[in-house]
Amino acid sequence: MARITESLSRYEALGLLKGAKIGRLVFSHQALPAVRPVNHVLLDDRVIIRAHTGAALLGPARDGAVVAYEADEFDTERRTGWSVVVTGEARLVRDPDLQQRYHEALEPWIGGDMTHTVSISLDLVTGCRITSRTTTDGRPER
Amino acid sequence: MARITESLSRYEALGLLKGAKIGRLVFSHQALPAVRPVNHVLLDDRVIIRAHTGAALLGPARDGAVVAYEADEFDTERRTGWSVVVTGEARLVRDPDLQQRYHEALEPWIGGDMTHTVSISLDLVTGCRITSRTTTDGRPER
Repeated sequence: MARITESLSRYEALGLLKGAKIGRLVFSHQALPAVRPVNHVLLDDRVIIRAHTGAALLGPARDGAVVAYEADEFDTERRTGWSVVVTGEARLVRDPDLQQRYHEALEPWIGGDMTHTVSISLDLVTGCRITSRTTTDGRPER
Repeated sequence: MARITESLSRYEALGLLKGAKIGRLVFSHQALPAVRPVNHVLLDDRVIIRAHTGAALLGPARDGAVVAYEADEFDTERRTGWSVVVTGEARLVRDPDLQQRYHEALEPWIGGDMTHTVSISLDLVTGCRITSRTTTDGRPER
């Protein structure tokens, strides 16, 4: 069956990102493209992630560099799914109260020294959905 | 239960990538980090993907730019899984015989003009596995 790709609205995309448990941080590291899976929460209109001391992603956060954050969910049998990408400035969270609030909201998967918190602004939010079903008038069925 | 992160060997990482149905291409587009989910095959020691005319990823492929390709699989309930990242040069496949071979091996999920083929060299292959189980001697159990 033919697949249809449709763009998601910012509202829809952020709803899917909020429900996702894990995503991938995309940034430049030593002038090469780098990508790391991490878990996140969406709070205060920012993507919040945690990082350990020495993590490569702390460099772009200290510099306020632009990074991307992607989350998706695909059904590889049916070849359907969605993907959401946020592009924005990464920032180290330095305020102790904010940091504590984010740490309470976001438990890292792995243990150890995950004391750093990085937030990413939602400057650009894009997303798409691949669907296989169409209604009789040819429009995608949800 | 505590999670353990272990690095994967190149051999193990490529085995997981070969079995994966979908991954994420990471590249620079208009000086910003970009990430796109695509399906792939691993052939001739390269990651092969297909692209439509006008796709943003054709720019880096024409330039022979360094890109990253990531695949992963996570169990969000158990908080375990693996991630593999290939970093290498993207190239447009121009040889008609090779192109035909790759098109036969890789059916794109979405229809339309997916006539372009991009290959990525396996210059750097890294991967990690997050596991929650340990054996009696403290080593991760597979």
